[in-house]
Amino acid sequence: MISVSDTLRIISEEAKIIGKEKLDILSCNGLVLAEDILSKDYLPPFDKSAMDGYALRSCDTLGISDENPKGFKVKGVIKAGQWCTESIKEGEAYKIMTGAPIPLQADCVIEVEKVTTEGDKVYLYNEVKEENHVIKFGEELHPGNLVLHKGSEIRPAEIGLFASLGYKEVEVYKRPVVGLIITGDELVAIEDSIGQGKIRNSNEYAITSMLTTMGIKVLSFGIVKDDKAVLTKVIKEALEKTDVVITSGGASAGDYDFVEDILKEIDADIKFNSVAIKPGKPISFATYKDKLFFSLPGNPLSAITTFEQFIEPACKKIMGKEQYMKEEFPVILAEDFKVRKGRVKLIYVRLVKENNNYYAYKIGSQSSNKLTTISKANGVLIVPEDYTYMKAGEVLQGRFIFK
Amino acid sequence: MISVSDTLRIISEEAKIIGKEKLDILSCNGLVLAEDILSKDYLPPFDKSAMDGYALRSCDTLGISDENPKGFKVKGVIKAGQWCTESIKEGEAYKIMTGAPIPLQADCVIEVEKVTTEGDKVYLYNEVKEENHVIKFGEELHPGNLVLHKGSEIRPAEIGLFASLGYKEVEVYKRPVVGLIITGDELVAIEDSIGQGKIRNSNEYAITSMLTTMGIKVLSFGIVKDDKAVLTKVIKEALEKTDVVITSGGASAGDYDFVEDILKEIDADIKFNSVAIKPGKPISFATYKDKLFFSLPGNPLSAITTFEQFIEPACKKIMGKEQYMKEEFPVILAEDFKVRKGRVKLIYVRLVKENNNYYAYKIGSQSSNKLTTISKANGVLIVPEDYTYMKAGEVLQGRFIFK
Repeated sequence: MISVSDTLRIISEEAKIIGKEKLDILSCNGLVLAEDILSKDYLPPFDKSAMDGYALRSCDTLGISDENPKGFKVKGVIKAGQWCTESIKEGEAYKIMTGAPIPLQADCVIEVEKVTTEGDKVYLYNEVKEENHVIKFGEELHPGNLVLHKGSEIRPAEIGLFASLGYKEVEVYKRPVVGLIITGDELVAIEDSIGQGKIRNSNEYAITSMLTTMGIKVLSFGIVKDDKAVLTKVIKEALEKTDVVITSGGASAGDYDFVEDILKEIDADIKFNSVAIKPGKPISFATYKDKLFFSLPGNPLSAITTFEQFIEPACKKIMGKEQYMKEEFPVILAEDFKVRKGRVKLIYVRLVKENNNYYAYKIGSQSSNKLTTISKANGVLIVPEDYTYMKAGEVLQGRFIFK
Repeated sequence: MISVSDTLRIISEEAKIIGKEKLDILSCNGLVLAEDILSKDYLPPFDKSAMDGYALRSCDTLGISDENPKGFKVKGVIKAGQWCTESIKEGEAYKIMTGAPIPLQADCVIEVEKVTTEGDKVYLYNEVKEENHVIKFGEELHPGNLVLHKGSEIRPAEIGLFASLGYKEVEVYKRPVVGLIITGDELVAIEDSIGQGKIRNSNEYAITSMLTTMGIKVLSFGIVKDDKAVLTKVIKEALEKTDVVITSGGASAGDYDFVEDILKEIDADIKFNSVAIKPGKPISFATYKDKLFFSLPGNPLSAITTFEQFIEPACKKIMGKEQYMKEEFPVILAEDFKVRKGRVKLIYVRLVKENNNYYAYKIGSQSSNKLTTISKANGVLIVPEDYTYMKAGEVLQGRFIFK
């Protein structure tokens, strides 16, 4: 039995980037850039107006004041998107819209709110400085400038940025394909009736949902009977076709023995098969060539807990994310808590924000076969191994679940 | 010009649930239940063992102690998933796996760690209480029991729970279909070269990405030229085919006039056309029959800011989410900040957690046409209208972006 921190360290050492792929930018939200993104253009590609107003020559405004206003002849309107090859002369102006190109010889824009108009004349009441409200050619970017570096996480803003730079596709780190194997003779399909020793397969759905939420493709092998030959075949197939294999064990000790035996027979490198955590002790982890293999406990709560604690960070690291660990923060106990000694305990709680602190409230039984428990919780309290009795007001670490 | 809080109130009054739909449970993560979920079964559907151990009759263990151990005859093994119609008699036991059904007449389980075995005998060293490690028939749920109520948000745990209860599909509140119209003669497609007054269409990609992240389907009408007849036709089509219509305006004042004129001509109810927020002042909002219509500014930063501030909460409310507003929290200024008076300012910043507090660091120019600005930020600082100069150490409200 190894500690939670050793578990995280060992998994993190083995979870590595598995490759790159070019994707359409709209498929990239939440993924990580595997290439530097450089500008191909000068941005803006021309001097443009930052305001709706009038473009003119700043030198023509010298001496203008409230007491000494001056009229300019408006030669026309330049809209955004319109190209302008006109030039202006002394005493002339163009009405100009935000984003529109500045006419030749003009070097400043005065906003529409500061002038008055009469017929084809616009009247100014103050001097205007050179480059006032003008966004200069290449002010933001030059060709070859680094805009986003390899390793940046892609969000909607970056997707907009790719588009503005002319990138329809970008290179991102590959998401692992995950093979999911559900074992346990007690399991029946969702549409089957229960009784006679059976329960419905729920882990396949909960785990698939957690994976697809990360944008990861799941190859599900469904329920595999507790038969060593069959399981061996399926595990081999999964290791061949996917990057990460997850089994969710049946509840009986015999099932897991199969998995461990099979891993030994195929010469997988078993890193550990028991972690000092509750729920979730019987999680095991192995590598096979460049593939990762996790065997999760069959109890729904244990499977979800260990997935979030160990597999989610591994998948995020494979996807190139710098922040791959779950974020923990201090949590104040709103009530007394009592637990048994030994193993780190993850207690499902309701975290409520009050005065900018998080308080942990009990949500009832922590029985690891009850999904109804977790459906009342939005977080877990992380109780160190040697804690048994904690009083309301004490501060422990905690984290959100499904976030 | 109306205030940010009035804006939110007006939009929230109009954003209503638009219907229900039955979806496969694996498509439901992040959606909201539109029906109560009741148990169809007794759970567990039989008395089952909570441990790997031995099932026997508690009355046979009376008087057992370290000094006075007792051997029981092991009649066989019951695995999880196996149905057991056997019964045991005095002095007999069954080896039993976690999740397996308790044999008839047995009423308790002793865990495997507390016994020794020899041949077909298991030796006990302590008394065992009735129901020890037995999960009783119906202990968790009875048929008709309410498991999840209408309005619950669906996460992977709930998806697992649906499966365990035999629900392959559940009824959820419908997501709106959003029609997206990009206007502006200055816009060209991603693959086009820029220059001659043009810039690439980026808002379509950023906004689409923000919508699809919420699980919302986008019907994009692409770039529509600044031509009133064409725009009228497209707006009418969008209002017919979708639930929420978003236009992202061209930068010129004339463009928005088209939209406002068109809305008046089709008898839409324009709720407001200007909000005291920077960036994002020219956002407008209207209703047309039971449809919502938002017109966003064309500048990329303004479009993203107003989308997150106003449209995201509206979509979440339509989807039945109770927590539809962006979560705000106190942020300590890490540096001095200076802004112009008037309008609530959303300043893009880097939020860094230190000692469990969030500190706001500057990320440079807030120019609303620069997507490079927002790509350095992970949050916004919310500066009230009358603030102009703030010192490091002051506390303001802030929130994350894209979260």
